[in-house]
Amino acid sequence: MSDRPGAIEPFVPPAWESSGSRSALRITNVKTILTAPDGIRLVVVKVETNEPEIYGVGCASFTQRPLGVAAAIEQYLKPNLIGRDPNNIEDIFQVNNLSGYWRSGPVLNNALSGIDMALWDIKGKLAGMPVYQLLGGKVRKAAPVYSHASGRNFQAVEEEVLRLKEQGFRFVRCQVEVPGNATYGVDDKSTDDYPTYLRARQGIWNFSSYCRVVPRLFDYLRSRVGEELELLHDIHERLPPILAIGLARELEPFHLFFLEDPFAPEDNGYFPMLRQQTATPIAMGELFVNQAEYVPLIHNRLIDFIRCHISAIGGITPARKLASYCEFFGVRTAWHGPGDVSPIGHAVNLQLDLSSPNFGIQECFHFGDAAKAVFPGTPEIRDGYLWSNEQPGLGIDIDETLAEKFPLPEHPLNGAFPEVRQTDGTVIRW
Amino acid sequence: MSDRPGAIEPFVPPAWESSGSRSALRITNVKTILTAPDGIRLVVVKVETNEPEIYGVGCASFTQRPLGVAAAIEQYLKPNLIGRDPNNIEDIFQVNNLSGYWRSGPVLNNALSGIDMALWDIKGKLAGMPVYQLLGGKVRKAAPVYSHASGRNFQAVEEEVLRLKEQGFRFVRCQVEVPGNATYGVDDKSTDDYPTYLRARQGIWNFSSYCRVVPRLFDYLRSRVGEELELLHDIHERLPPILAIGLARELEPFHLFFLEDPFAPEDNGYFPMLRQQTATPIAMGELFVNQAEYVPLIHNRLIDFIRCHISAIGGITPARKLASYCEFFGVRTAWHGPGDVSPIGHAVNLQLDLSSPNFGIQECFHFGDAAKAVFPGTPEIRDGYLWSNEQPGLGIDIDETLAEKFPLPEHPLNGAFPEVRQTDGTVIRW
Amino acid sequence: MSDRPGAIEPFVPPAWESSGSRSALRITNVKTILTAPDGIRLVVVKVETNEPEIYGVGCASFTQRPLGVAAAIEQYLKPNLIGRDPNNIEDIFQVNNLSGYWRSGPVLNNALSGIDMALWDIKGKLAGMPVYQLLGGKVRKAAPVYSHASGRNFQAVEEEVLRLKEQGFRFVRCQVEVPGNATYGVDDKSTDDYPTYLRARQGIWNFSSYCRVVPRLFDYLRSRVGEELELLHDIHERLPPILAIGLARELEPFHLFFLEDPFAPEDNGYFPMLRQQTATPIAMGELFVNQAEYVPLIHNRLIDFIRCHISAIGGITPARKLASYCEFFGVRTAWHGPGDVSPIGHAVNLQLDLSSPNFGIQECFHFGDAAKAVFPGTPEIRDGYLWSNEQPGLGIDIDETLAEKFPLPEHPLNGAFPEVRQTDGTVIRW
Amino acid sequence: MSDRPGAIEPFVPPAWESSGSRSALRITNVKTILTAPDGIRLVVVKVETNEPEIYGVGCASFTQRPLGVAAAIEQYLKPNLIGRDPNNIEDIFQVNNLSGYWRSGPVLNNALSGIDMALWDIKGKLAGMPVYQLLGGKVRKAAPVYSHASGRNFQAVEEEVLRLKEQGFRFVRCQVEVPGNATYGVDDKSTDDYPTYLRARQGIWNFSSYCRVVPRLFDYLRSRVGEELELLHDIHERLPPILAIGLARELEPFHLFFLEDPFAPEDNGYFPMLRQQTATPIAMGELFVNQAEYVPLIHNRLIDFIRCHISAIGGITPARKLASYCEFFGVRTAWHGPGDVSPIGHAVNLQLDLSSPNFGIQECFHFGDAAKAVFPGTPEIRDGYLWSNEQPGLGIDIDETLAEKFPLPEHPLNGAFPEVRQTDGTVIRW
Repeated sequence: MSDRPGAIEPFVPPAWESSGSRSALRITNVKTILTAPDGIRLVVVKVETNEPEIYGVGCASFTQRPLGVAAAIEQYLKPNLIGRDPNNIEDIFQVNNLSGYWRSGPVLNNALSGIDMALWDIKGKLAGMPVYQLLGGKVRKAAPVYSHASGRNFQAVEEEVLRLKEQGFRFVRCQVEVPGNATYGVDDKSTDDYPTYLRARQGIWNFSSYCRVVPRLFDYLRSRVGEELELLHDIHERLPPILAIGLARELEPFHLFFLEDPFAPEDNGYFPMLRQQTATPIAMGELFVNQAEYVPLIHNRLIDFIRCHISAIGGITPARKLASYCEFFGVRTAWHGPGDVSPIGHAVNLQLDLSSPNFGIQECFHFGDAAKAVFPGTPEIRDGYLWSNEQPGLGIDIDETLAEKFPLPEHPLNGAFPEVRQTDGTVIRW
Repeated sequence: MSDRPGAIEPFVPPAWESSGSRSALRITNVKTILTAPDGIRLVVVKVETNEPEIYGVGCASFTQRPLGVAAAIEQYLKPNLIGRDPNNIEDIFQVNNLSGYWRSGPVLNNALSGIDMALWDIKGKLAGMPVYQLLGGKVRKAAPVYSHASGRNFQAVEEEVLRLKEQGFRFVRCQVEVPGNATYGVDDKSTDDYPTYLRARQGIWNFSSYCRVVPRLFDYLRSRVGEELELLHDIHERLPPILAIGLARELEPFHLFFLEDPFAPEDNGYFPMLRQQTATPIAMGELFVNQAEYVPLIHNRLIDFIRCHISAIGGITPARKLASYCEFFGVRTAWHGPGDVSPIGHAVNLQLDLSSPNFGIQECFHFGDAAKAVFPGTPEIRDGYLWSNEQPGLGIDIDETLAEKFPLPEHPLNGAFPEVRQTDGTVIRW
Repeated sequence: MSDRPGAIEPFVPPAWESSGSRSALRITNVKTILTAPDGIRLVVVKVETNEPEIYGVGCASFTQRPLGVAAAIEQYLKPNLIGRDPNNIEDIFQVNNLSGYWRSGPVLNNALSGIDMALWDIKGKLAGMPVYQLLGGKVRKAAPVYSHASGRNFQAVEEEVLRLKEQGFRFVRCQVEVPGNATYGVDDKSTDDYPTYLRARQGIWNFSSYCRVVPRLFDYLRSRVGEELELLHDIHERLPPILAIGLARELEPFHLFFLEDPFAPEDNGYFPMLRQQTATPIAMGELFVNQAEYVPLIHNRLIDFIRCHISAIGGITPARKLASYCEFFGVRTAWHGPGDVSPIGHAVNLQLDLSSPNFGIQECFHFGDAAKAVFPGTPEIRDGYLWSNEQPGLGIDIDETLAEKFPLPEHPLNGAFPEVRQTDGTVIRW
Repeated sequence: MSDRPGAIEPFVPPAWESSGSRSALRITNVKTILTAPDGIRLVVVKVETNEPEIYGVGCASFTQRPLGVAAAIEQYLKPNLIGRDPNNIEDIFQVNNLSGYWRSGPVLNNALSGIDMALWDIKGKLAGMPVYQLLGGKVRKAAPVYSHASGRNFQAVEEEVLRLKEQGFRFVRCQVEVPGNATYGVDDKSTDDYPTYLRARQGIWNFSSYCRVVPRLFDYLRSRVGEELELLHDIHERLPPILAIGLARELEPFHLFFLEDPFAPEDNGYFPMLRQQTATPIAMGELFVNQAEYVPLIHNRLIDFIRCHISAIGGITPARKLASYCEFFGVRTAWHGPGDVSPIGHAVNLQLDLSSPNFGIQECFHFGDAAKAVFPGTPEIRDGYLWSNEQPGLGIDIDETLAEKFPLPEHPLNGAFPEVRQTDGTVIRW
């Protein structure tokens, strides 16, 4: 930095750096890597040090706005990191978070997360331990996961559920197409024709039709797959709050493991009413990007599972604190884990899953071969569990050369989400 | 868009666009302009249409992260805007806000704001009216403003206060250097040596020293400038909450017009305690970027003045709704108005100031000649008021050729904020 | 005004009026027009200016007390308006509202509304835009409406529902006669014999009989018309609160789109109990005339649809603020829209419907030929939607000559509502 | 009524009227009398029966909108009253209140009040008792009153206070001019030049200047008149809420008997905050016109004195219930009693004052000779008390012939209130 005109030295109290066993360790480079091996735009950060073998990787994937995250890292966080001691994870988190003055939101939090996860990866490598060890060690052998079953009709969903059950999954999220509606979560994410996928998701959405279909789906499924299999469902914020409350009540007889995202974050204020009316377990939070959104929900025991997208709240540093806070209130974790969380993000989810007493469940994603090749060490799903490979740090790496072969694909709106509207044209939440 | 591989048409109900008197009007281009005429990094958006004289300008200034905002606009909002009818401001706001799925935060909100303000500018031009007319017309002749007085010691502050009073200002914000501390708000923002400015702001901060100095400053000032002049002070979130509460009480005898930002947004939960202990009027909110941060404060009447940075909450569309919400709760507006709000942002503040019955006060900034030249129509400060130039739309423009002559300057960390720490090295909020 | 003895000039800060592009525009006359083309007493205001083509019309219809409203306008608001700049809508609203010292209530609010809507009409004409454009532009192509189906028995209601469905209505409010009771909403409003209509409505009301009939009606209807059609019902404040709560729960299996006015405004305090017991969506508010009645309901998310009679809360100025407030709380709009809202009032409803993201539904009224002739530009109902005619301002006018041909008809009590009593003679809410 | 085309008979259960000792008594006429003997516009109602000596008078004075009240009575209430039994006060109140469907507000409530008070007057005459006897009888010999002392400076106020003290007043409300401001309550209400009076009240208002002056006034007064005299002050809703709270605290050392109307009704929500910060006794409510405004304040014990303008809430019927409700919560009465309450209204205040255990204090007005002549029986103020004349009914009458000699005077805006604005032109509450 010092060769630039007008540069100033970072402000560090003098006695600071001499502490710790590896005082000579310094961050020398920060790389932002954009890649889409499975067709989904991912943002990955690599933090390098003056010891070539000591580097870390982190997930900063905001799949709808990857270039905004990249700009934040490259232009603002990177120059603030070069020369710092990577041991000081917490101090670096605070400094980076405050250096923009304005803070929070999905762009800045993902940028923080890419760095933060990479620093925890480095810390683990320095300790010669998987990160879960630094977080207190294992409290379970592996993380039970849920997988997604969806289909065009009840029978198709049933078939998918049974297929997953056969593979050892004991938790399945079930979604069914609402005929004539751009239903969330019922398409395969085909990597070779993402525009087709987006087009399919664009269209009309009718609240009432959806509300009629879902209870029947679960009535059907319970009659076919029995009571032992744990079933989940995701409203995906697609209802006016009072309808979501009614639906949560109507689903009670089918004993969902949890009902996900009944409200948009802007409607958090409806949780007390939902809690007065139903005991359906509630998971919430993949959209949260600001502590003002999630602190009150835990404070008032309004949800049962916290389901943040860890990179969207800033990485391991805030997530482990959030998990600790939840433990005081009996709230369990169910970190967001779809395909727009990179395999590195899944590896991070797993570290927390293994070491948190108040872990609840983990959403999983079946990455394709390309993704697994780009991310050696992608955690394995086996027998309905996500398993650690027991390697130091996060236990996952990125093959940069291979990653380059999967540039962000050409998409309409650069991959931003298509519109879903009511019949009259009113745009609705996704 | 349709010439790109795999492109899809935006989803618009067929009968929609053909309505309105200017049905042929379409957005043809969106420009993101980075400029720093007074040395402060500004982000400006220009929305152009198929009628060359019909274009609008908006402020998207997030001075610490301008390139993140630029990426969000250029990569994601712009492709979603070309071909749309600029009359549909609210629909465009909703669509853009939802298109990223994850939303809020200073990067995305500023990007939304640049577009939103430009569309209101266009609407005003189409109507042949200043935007304040569209918002209900004037409820006051001009907007009373407060200016900043600061200095190295009490006497220097007093001199500055008296100088402003002589110029007609009836509201003055007063800050004094806490000796040996990197005090907020006591330096001039010298445009030709911003790094020197930043370096000066980097340093040590001692909570207690500050708490001792401030009540003495106001005791001194009241004894010198009398009681009629309205005095303000900004804590700038730089205290642990309980010290801010104590300070608010200690300042009561000096009858501040308001005390600003007693807490960081993360400490909003302390407001009920503050309100139990003191009647010092409270202004809050330049850092707010998520409705979960501000809705509860108004809901519970915990602040007297809402002071959002309008571009950081998304532009005129959310700000006018917020002002209306505040009106039901007796909360007045005091929109953020320093130099890192562009002259366009100040023009927007003024439109709301003139038309909101629950306007409280407006912070003003004395732009230099360069800024005024780049932004013809910059609202004038005269006799302690900010005045409208009565031109259609926002009444302000950008001279793009001139703007290019003031590229974003070379700054350490690309202009991110320097660190402020306690003596032991703990980094603190800014 | 100055030619009256002892007159004083209105107080206007000197620099005020000279601003704006049409500084010479002044209000020169205010007319209060009483007319009843369809037999329903309407109050309309016309505000004229010194530019003959620039005038506006507004709805001030308080059908039970039209002459009280007329007196308020003619005697108090009109003399306060002559000579003012019609651009200053918000200032005029505030001044008029405060000029009586005592404020709120249906008489004064309707008087304010007549002026306020007329000024927005003028503003739209000055801008050359429909008023919805001034409010942010369209967020939907047209406003979905619900129509009324009623009958002497279940079969009659069913026939009416099916008739409406065939006409394209997707939302129908259903009311059935409770035998032997003066049931609300089951008579046709025959224009040529309104006294007969009133006489029919006068009579006995038995709470329990009604509570038994309504669930059966909806059970019957669901079995006949299926699930996709959206059904609504109006309790019309005609129950003791606890019976309304029980009824709302009993109606849950029939999935009402909303249940209307379960309580009288005086019983608002029962909403928290209702919300603890049922997820039936609630619409409320045609009787509201004071913000103390509606602010707490939104504040605490106690209703799902705000259904004010816009002229009874004061016009567009308060209604647009209320809609914005509701948006922060997930409450949707369903403005009152029966025949005692004039066609001008319906045109106003539509402007807000088209531009409010949190619009829910619009009640519609099928005006007769006389009303449509008196009010050229009455919004059209087509395919279950209310459509804008895309004309500047409110897009509606009054034919004053024709209006004179429909004077307020001779009615008992000048049209005040007849009494409804329990068997023992106790008068009850309407 | 029955001779009008299409007339319907009022609906009355058959067995109803035969009860009671005077079953043949019927209302035969209702007169609305507008008079201004002291220059203040008053509205009085006279209800006549088929027994000539049995008639009653009531106050319906809404001095800023008298003709609106008159229209409501003449056009809507009167036709609904002819032929009814005046004994049925409560039934008539309910029927009239509900007959407009929309209800509350100052116009309709005053209209109800004129009738209601007249019916209580009749009831007292029928019983041969003062109305206070029907309310339970005397609990005190007379009603202690407070009178107003005001002046251009502290000394003038002091002189007025001392003058009143000498006259036997032990409670004095003190207001002083804020130099350069259109101060509330410091002018004499000269009957012969009301426009001059209004003009004087029109002007500029500065919140801070007022807040500085008031504590000094009371500091001054306490030092001159001692501690025994009870002093009161009226903010008259003229402050932003937080300043009113601060002022209430600053006034604590001077031990006000009460501080009146710290907030406008729209800011009722600030009362909890005020109560947390100060023990200054609070009186509130002359502007209340809707039970949603006052019920919560009593419910939560947020005020110490309820100060409604009895005719503005509907008359004796609602006021006696309100007083009863207050008794459960330790809230005392202090009914509004200035010159825009007619002498009849003062006579009503007195009936409640004498019989309410939770009476607090009574505001009094020194009517001139003209008013006393027009209203024979105007209650006398003597030794700081208001005394009953012990006559049956309200003990007061109206001389209709004399009343006609004092028609409503020519006033600008027909007597509506002039504007008060801040320096920038913002209109403020009165």
